[in-house]
Amino acid sequence: MSRKPSGVNAPAARLVPASPQGVLDHAGFADAMAALAGAVCVAAAGDGAERVGRTVTAVASLSPEPPTLLVSVTRDSALARAILSTGGFSLAMLAPGQEEIADLFAGKRGAAERFAEGRWRAWPSGRPLLLGAAQAVDCTLAGVVELPTHCLFVGALVGSLRGGDGALVWHRRAYKSL
Amino acid sequence: MSRKPSGVNAPAARLVPASPQGVLDHAGFADAMAALAGAVCVAAAGDGAERVGRTVTAVASLSPEPPTLLVSVTRDSALARAILSTGGFSLAMLAPGQEEIADLFAGKRGAAERFAEGRWRAWPSGRPLLLGAAQAVDCTLAGVVELPTHCLFVGALVGSLRGGDGALVWHRRAYKSL
Repeated sequence: MSRKPSGVNAPAARLVPASPQGVLDHAGFADAMAALAGAVCVAAAGDGAERVGRTVTAVASLSPEPPTLLVSVTRDSALARAILSTGGFSLAMLAPGQEEIADLFAGKRGAAERFAEGRWRAWPSGRPLLLGAAQAVDCTLAGVVELPTHCLFVGALVGSLRGGDGALVWHRRAYKSL
Repeated sequence: MSRKPSGVNAPAARLVPASPQGVLDHAGFADAMAALAGAVCVAAAGDGAERVGRTVTAVASLSPEPPTLLVSVTRDSALARAILSTGGFSLAMLAPGQEEIADLFAGKRGAAERFAEGRWRAWPSGRPLLLGAAQAVDCTLAGVVELPTHCLFVGALVGSLRGGDGALVWHRRAYKSL
């Protein structure tokens, strides 16, 4: 697959370096962000032996028109490269009980072994689909914002599958279940 | 205050319209996004009689270097205009028991009456500070990405105040407490 976005409708984007004085240090930043409860998700791209995935919590609903969400991924990562080269990604919002999958995709095992845990199938697009997730969605890439350390990927939702009522959340450096 | 970012280091940003065929309809999108648990926060800007604020859940940690977070705000809103004109925003991650504040800033009352509930003070910057929030942070505006319906505001953290261990979360169209 090669479906990089080609038509361009560039949004205005500006970034200025934060003032070196006055911003929080790493520990202060980490403590503040630990308070921000976030859904534990696995973002994935590619298909077959080329699948890659990563646990992410920086995910946000963007707009119903067009139906889009946003996910932040480390810029220098296999996942970011796969999303760009294949033109899409899938997202599994994990359910309570899927902590082990979250750990695997957060780096507990190497990339090749991550999909061994959990019932992984494929969306019609070929992208990875995790059965048993609270909710799984499939997205085509609708936009990319490249920031210094991260890429913000805007995905247009082309598939959605509900698996359960609960949610696995990351908060104060621990998993919590809803 | 007038501290709009001036130095420009434009990140590459591309946006293509989602394919009209195949994307989820509004109901399907809303159902999928209802599954995405998110911290309930009040984003605010301005000071004194010029304060404005809005309940938001599309908030994500961005990068420790520089220490930044991202918040998505409806583009055509008083809050977006205030953030742009004042060059910053504050964010209160709400605690369990602050559902009424969340409702007020989600539109239950007009803009002028929202700050009547809760113990609002001011950061040294002048921006609104909600005492009793799980965590409150103060941000200077480090970047803006303008998408068709929303602005993504990148804030550099210049202040942080911890108020408690819990968190108020929005999930499946209801408040839940951690």
